[in-house]
Amino acid sequence: MYEGPIQDLIDELAKLPGLGPKGAQRIAFHLLSVENKEIDRLISALGHVRDDVTFCVECGNVAANKLCRICADARRDATKICVVEEPKDVQAIERTKEFTGRYHVLGGALDPLNGVGPDQLRIRELLRRLADQDDGVDVSEIIVATDPNTEGEATATYLVRMLRDFPGLSVTRLASGLPMGGDLEFADELTLGRALSGRRVLS
Amino acid sequence: MYEGPIQDLIDELAKLPGLGPKGAQRIAFHLLSVENKEIDRLISALGHVRDDVTFCVECGNVAANKLCRICADARRDATKICVVEEPKDVQAIERTKEFTGRYHVLGGALDPLNGVGPDQLRIRELLRRLADQDDGVDVSEIIVATDPNTEGEATATYLVRMLRDFPGLSVTRLASGLPMGGDLEFADELTLGRALSGRRVLS
Repeated sequence: MYEGPIQDLIDELAKLPGLGPKGAQRIAFHLLSVENKEIDRLISALGHVRDDVTFCVECGNVAANKLCRICADARRDATKICVVEEPKDVQAIERTKEFTGRYHVLGGALDPLNGVGPDQLRIRELLRRLADQDDGVDVSEIIVATDPNTEGEATATYLVRMLRDFPGLSVTRLASGLPMGGDLEFADELTLGRALSGRRVLS
Repeated sequence: MYEGPIQDLIDELAKLPGLGPKGAQRIAFHLLSVENKEIDRLISALGHVRDDVTFCVECGNVAANKLCRICADARRDATKICVVEEPKDVQAIERTKEFTGRYHVLGGALDPLNGVGPDQLRIRELLRRLADQDDGVDVSEIIVATDPNTEGEATATYLVRMLRDFPGLSVTRLASGLPMGGDLEFADELTLGRALSGRRVLS
């Protein structure tokens, strides 16, 4: 145990994912030795994330403007929507360079035991996107790319049930090839790319 | 690459020691999902470290008050001073529970190529502590516990030269040798050489 501010910082840092007490201590002493303006930049970046992060009104991805970069890009194929749990999953799929369509970020996966039901996810917004096709483009495929774990699978099943009444819409799921029980964001590009190109029809 | 504030935070976090882009991303998205007051606590802890960290006027360790906890503790043996490079080295030695004396934190090690000479370290303060013994306690031993690398060894050699004229003062150095729990065959030549030349009589 250190004294005063340095221990408080170590305690706060140690709460972050992937940082134990040792890592937190290493960072705290690093910050003690850097110039003040480096700490200022970190504080300012944290404040901006707290206050200024906005989400795309269309897909729910993190965005700098009203629309995210992908929704604002007219060259992206509007007939395909890839449904993911989190913004970091969008990044993971973008890295494969296999997908040229749009995204829809749910903001999580169904997890009733922890109070996450359909109303806590952006499912209504997805249905509205499909119904509200006054832009003249018909969505022909929904790729369900939720995590290959219990919650993600349950979410996929729920989505299939909600979407099967839309005429001319096929709902697909990322192929197995992703290790079950894992996190989508940690899959390597090749595995994730294979999973994408081998996606199966669900309904 | 994400958009806006979230990428700025990832960039800042990725500069910290032990955090790569993946770890930084993980923390940034974690912070996006926590309540604002958790980010507030982290920002406040960073601000306090930037503005309010003080150092013990006696030994140079990080401190909450004028004196650090160890210098303020009358039960600590004032006849022994263990000289270390950084505050984290104090913590490391405290964890052994083998040392009951006081400390002196140099604030680094001699490294002339990077502009660190004796004047950049708290060596003058150490000499003043030894000379200024109006508290009636004579320091009888200085344990030089700088790192066992080039800079730490050079600092130890320099300290021995500075301290040899103090009457009745013995200067000692932490033993170098094989790390406990390690394999002899995997020790590097330098370490094994030190272990051999520093061998102790068992019987």
